[in-house]
Amino acid sequence: MSNFSKVNVLDDARVELHDQLSLTGAEISMNHLPAGTSVPFVHSHKQNEEIYGVLSGKGKVVIDGETILLSEGDWLRIAPVAKRQFFASDDASMRFVCIQVKENSLEGYTMTDAVVE
Amino acid sequence: MSNFSKVNVLDDARVELHDQLSLTGAEISMNHLPAGTSVPFVHSHKQNEEIYGVLSGKGKVVIDGETILLSEGDWLRIAPVAKRQFFASDDASMRFVCIQVKENSLEGYTMTDAVVE
Repeated sequence: MSNFSKVNVLDDARVELHDQLSLTGAEISMNHLPAGTSVPFVHSHKQNEEIYGVLSGKGKVVIDGETILLSEGDWLRIAPVAKRQFFASDDASMRFVCIQVKENSLEGYTMTDAVVE
Repeated sequence: MSNFSKVNVLDDARVELHDQLSLTGAEISMNHLPAGTSVPFVHSHKQNEEIYGVLSGKGKVVIDGETILLSEGDWLRIAPVAKRQFFASDDASMRFVCIQVKENSLEGYTMTDAVVE
């Protein structure tokens, strides 16, 4: 396998990167909810932590019944067990990235994992 | 620990989310290279896969001596062993997200890990 893989996802409504990039430590999806719409179900996870980042627009997420307003630049961690549903605003769409990783899977990182030449 | 955590990182030059969000499966950094600048070193990793996403602007990355041009919407996987260095364009800055995860740590995902209510 090549030491890198690359894809451009700028113009798609939803893109899942795991297979396109041959990811082995995460699934990453790019999502675009038009104004007034939502992900059509509530979900939780068995073992994956999810990290969400709002790339543009605004909306909200309901987590275990609590409503959190969202706008560009917001990043959230959501524990596997939490029940979540994302909504775009009534008057603005929302683009966001969702990163699924196995909870407690990270060991070293940055200074303890990088090798600087 | 709460079932979620949230932070806004819109206006910062570099932000590391691991500690701010109590992440357990990834380290995520938001990065902003001004035009004409680069990450000041070449690096690789011991065991972490890195996934990079270009949020705005343009630039390039050199991976094991190969130059790949980058623009908004580009996403890359880079294997731990690959030697990499990121550069903004001479005439445009580049904002990107970097996601570190342990290689081969993901088990189920999406349909095999989600629980739909």
